[in-house]
Order: sequence, then structure tokens, then C-alpha cells
Amino acid sequence: MADSSNPQGRIRLALDAGSGDYGAEVTLAAARDAIRSDAHLFLYVVDLPAALAGASDGLTPAQAARLECVAAESVLDSDVGPATAIRQGARSSLGGALELVADGRADACISAGSTTALIALGMKRLGMLPGLKRPALMSAVPSRNGYTSMLDLGANLNVDAVQLVQFAIMGAVARQHEGEADPSVGLLNVGHEDGKGHAIVREAHERLKQLPLNYRGFIEGNELFTGRVDVAVCDGFSGNLVLKSSEGLARMLLEDLRGSLDSSWRTRLGAWMSGPTLRRTLARFDPAHHNGAPLLGLNGVVVKSHGSADRRAMLQAIREAGNEAVMRVPGKIGKLIHNYKAEAPS
Amino acid sequence: MADSSNPQGRIRLALDAGSGDYGAEVTLAAARDAIRSDAHLFLYVVDLPAALAGASDGLTPAQAARLECVAAESVLDSDVGPATAIRQGARSSLGGALELVADGRADACISAGSTTALIALGMKRLGMLPGLKRPALMSAVPSRNGYTSMLDLGANLNVDAVQLVQFAIMGAVARQHEGEADPSVGLLNVGHEDGKGHAIVREAHERLKQLPLNYRGFIEGNELFTGRVDVAVCDGFSGNLVLKSSEGLARMLLEDLRGSLDSSWRTRLGAWMSGPTLRRTLARFDPAHHNGAPLLGLNGVVVKSHGSADRRAMLQAIREAGNEAVMRVPGKIGKLIHNYKAEAPS
Repeated sequence: MADSSNPQGRIRLALDAGSGDYGAEVTLAAARDAIRSDAHLFLYVVDLPAALAGASDGLTPAQAARLECVAAESVLDSDVGPATAIRQGARSSLGGALELVADGRADACISAGSTTALIALGMKRLGMLPGLKRPALMSAVPSRNGYTSMLDLGANLNVDAVQLVQFAIMGAVARQHEGEADPSVGLLNVGHEDGKGHAIVREAHERLKQLPLNYRGFIEGNELFTGRVDVAVCDGFSGNLVLKSSEGLARMLLEDLRGSLDSSWRTRLGAWMSGPTLRRTLARFDPAHHNGAPLLGLNGVVVKSHGSADRRAMLQAIREAGNEAVMRVPGKIGKLIHNYKAEAPS
Repeated sequence: MADSSNPQGRIRLALDAGSGDYGAEVTLAAARDAIRSDAHLFLYVVDLPAALAGASDGLTPAQAARLECVAAESVLDSDVGPATAIRQGARSSLGGALELVADGRADACISAGSTTALIALGMKRLGMLPGLKRPALMSAVPSRNGYTSMLDLGANLNVDAVQLVQFAIMGAVARQHEGEADPSVGLLNVGHEDGKGHAIVREAHERLKQLPLNYRGFIEGNELFTGRVDVAVCDGFSGNLVLKSSEGLARMLLEDLRGSLDSSWRTRLGAWMSGPTLRRTLARFDPAHHNGAPLLGLNGVVVKSHGSADRRAMLQAIREAGNEAVMRVPGKIGKLIHNYKAEAPS
């Protein structure tokens, strides 16, 4: 039984160790890496008992004392639907990780499992913050002078105008918490003019103009990277395609760069020399350097990892959850949402 | 009055010279560049008479004989709606360029004007190919071993499943015409499994499985760049965001690379040396190197340029229209569409 008190400075996370394409071997290796590299971290790992055998292998006794195994009865499939997730999820590794957050024993949880299951079980177990309809996945894309926070990235494939407005508010609050005094917000569309786009973005545009937000209007896809706004809002279907295509393009270019190491002397030397600037930018799209998207709107901190996360990527997601736990964004959203006079859920 | 006969080997194009952000000064300069660089090209330039004054300046008499000015009475605004385009468009520079294609005097036309107006007037003046509902914009994105043809890129912000299927067929036919014996097709979605995505992509997926197409199922955004399929299909809203964000990312990285020329000796030398591989890839996202998207499904060849095309980019769009005119894809789509037993328009 875990201690539900939280000694000062200790970050307590719950990892759905059964999730992800590579299973417990990879997630537990990442968990041990996290424990070793952060002395303030206390980590629950939730999985089937058999998978958890040897979870602490290789840790010192002091480190092992900060890794606690929590038994689950199942691991949800990666293609599970919401109804099945609700029906079968309570005693799953995901359900157990969310439970630890709901109980207050963990400050945040991490899962590389299905977004559908994460949302269904997250809404059931943690609930939504008052006034918000559905959670949204947010992530950062590199821009010329920093980064653009983009949401939604796949939690909501069909959205209405009120949801887009709520994404804008959640994104702005999150960026305030990251130090932007007055975060600027743009709504992704196929053009800048008022009449552009389909009915839902046009309605959201009109609603956003009425709010006390630093709303800059419609932006186009290329402006994700120019730094024109701090927060870029779109539906989860488009957002998912945009993020994954950008990752794919960056990966192809990085492989180009690496591939040149095997070619002529001239190119080889060049790739080595020009590396720093370009590689730093490209690395921001590499899951091994950048992984873990907060699922905003829930009454608790939940971080989604890439399903295909390897050990390094999973370690990044655990660290991201630690950052989110420290920032306590959901509490801040809950307090500030009313300032924006957002629509109540329908 | 133009000669409506077409001497063998001559390509006759009609340029909406009034379109685009920079107007006739830029479009006519590009037109002269095109005339100078291709002795087989005959080019109609359509604009207000005042804008066309001096169109042939600097051309030799033989070159000037291949550039014919056609007077229009108006130039449509870039944010014009479909109803206004239909009402006011017949005597516009765009309407005039389409008219030349409809009359058989030009083999293809080019416009940097509003996609909305291009579709509305294109459908009215040229008509759709039998069995197809709406045109789609297609373009090529670079992939590891070649390119992926992607459609729609903004002609259809809301689509139904039948339209997605028709995009797949049009894309496959276009790629056959470019030399692929059996082009592979993927449907962009947020995951690979059958149950993923919203109702429209799921329905299109089931319909595509029934067709005699080399259909590879759902693909994710990153697979645009891996070369997994020859043709990637999606709605025009997502497609536009994906294409423009990829262009924006490529531009940012290219500027990174160029920016390093102004920094230290080591990085400067490195950027110069590693240039060839990476620059070639990035250039494919640069409108100055790659511009002009065919609007497929119309009964005639129509090429859309970026609105913000400069002189070099506009020249690329004219050249792309020349290629499309030679390939005569619409005729091919018209002949092959029935082989695929596509749904009739509703």
C-alpha cells in the first residue's frame, strides 16, 4: 500500500507499463532510467503481475524504494473502442494508473495506449473540468523563435465550434503557465479572410473574437512554424495529420543528413560541420527527444505517449509528465476558464 | 482572333494574368520567361487591357508572335464566393482563360486566383467528367524514393465517402499516366486499424476495398514521406493544412541552413558542403521550384498556382500546365473512370 502523503519536492507519477507497442520490457527499462536520473521521482508502474517481475532489477535499494509495482488484471488492446474501454478498463493497467491520480496518490499518469481508451477512462475516472466538453491533446512544434503549442492532435476527430473555442482557452492557459504573459492564439484554416473555411471554423472564429483572448484570427498551415502565434487550434483529425506529417518530413530530412555520412568525403565533412543548427531543429520532431502530449481538460494530469515509443522516447514522456505535474495546468485551467466566459457545455 | 488550329508539337496555354497577389507585372514577366524558354509554347495572357499594355516588351518579334493578349473586363477578388464568381466571372480574367480551354483554343489554363472561383467557374464552363462529383487539387510531396501524389488540397473542405473514393481513382489514373503500372493508394487517417477515424473515412475505406484499385488501406501522416503509397487521399481541409505545414517546415529548415551561412566559419563551410542532398529535398517544397497543382475531375486541364507566387514560381506553374496539357490526364480519367465502377454522383 502506497503512502498517500507527498513529501515536499517529490514527484509521484503512475506509468501504464502495459501500454505501447513494445510492452513492459521497454516501459520498465524507461521507468528505471527515470528513477536513476531523477532522485525526486517516485514512480508507480502498473501492469500484469507477471510482466512486473524483475521491475527493479539493477536498481539500488534506495532507487528500488522509489519504484512501486501495482498489479493490473488486463492490458487494453491498442484498437479498443470507448465502450469496451469503459466496460473492461477499470482493472486494466491504464485504469490502474488513472486510479492512482484520482486517489491523489500520483500527481500525473503516463500511457502509450489507445487515445480512445485514455479519453473514455480518463473522463470516467477523473472527470472533466467544469465547463469543458471533451479533453484535447496538445503538443509543441518548433517555430522560428521558440515553439507553437498545437491542439487538438487526435482526441476529437469531429469537433463543433464551442470545442474549438475551448481548445483555444486551454491552450492559452497552458502557455500562460509556461510563462507567456498574454499568449496569442490562431485558428488553423485554409485562408486568412473571414469567409474562408467550413462552417465550424467560421463560427469558432466569430466566437473567439468575442472573448478576452489575444486572438489573432485564422492562420494557415505554414504559420505553425513562423512563430506568428503561441497557440494554434484545430480539430483532432487535421491536427493529427499535420503533426505526424511534420514528424515524417523531419525524419526523412534527418535521415538524408545522416545518410550523407556514408557518401563522399565532401558531403560527409559537410554534414558533420553543418550539424548543430539543423539537427537541433530536427531533433524536436524525433520521439526519442520529444515525446508526451498532455491531455488537457481532465481534472488531473494525464500524458499520452506515442504508441511506438522506444525506451528513450518513453523516458521523455515520463519526464514530460513530471513537468506537467509540477505545473499543475488542470488546476489552473479550472480556475481561469470562467475568466474567458466560455460557453457552457451543451 | 486566335488561330484555333494547333500545329503539331505546339502547346497552347491560357494564363489568368490578373490573378495572384502580385498582379500582371509578375505574371507577365513569368509569361515572357516561359515564351523565351520554350519555343513550342503559345501563350494567351488574359487581363484588363490596361494591364496588358507592354506585355510583349523585350521579346523578339518571333517570340511576341507566340504571346497573345486577350482582354478581360474584370479581375475577381481573391476572397470571392462561388455565387459571385459565377455571377461576375464570365468576363473576368479567370473566365476568359477558362473560355479559351472550353473553346479548344488552349490546351490548359493557369490561375493563381481563388480556388473557390476556379472551381465554380471551371465546373460551369468546362463541366465535370461523367460520374465525378467535384474537382480535387492534387500535388506531389517528396518521399524517400520519389514522390507521393496527394489530393485533395483544398478544393473540398467537406467531403463524403464517395468523393474520397473518387479522389483515389483520379489520383491513381494520374499516376498511371505518369508511368506507374499499378499505383498504390492510401487513405489518410489517424491510425491503421479498420475501426480508426471518423465515419466518413471508415465508409470510404470499406468502399475502396471493393474496387479494382491497388488500395493499401489507411495510412498515417508520416507515411506521406516514406513512399509507402503512390497516392494519398484526404479531405481538402486536412490536405491543405498538411501541405502548407510541410511547406512551412521545409522553409524554416532551409532558412536555418541559409542562416548558417552568416554565422561562424565552421558552420558556413559545413552548410556549403552538406548542401546538395538536403537542399534538393527542401527545394521541392519551395514554390519557386515547385508550383502548380492540377485541378482534376474537370473536362479540361486547369492548373492552380499559389496565390503568393512570384515570377519564378509562376513560371513553374506555367511549365506544370504545359506538362499537364501534354499528358491530357482529364481525357484519361474520363475513359478509365468506368473501369473502377465508381459510384455515380448523388
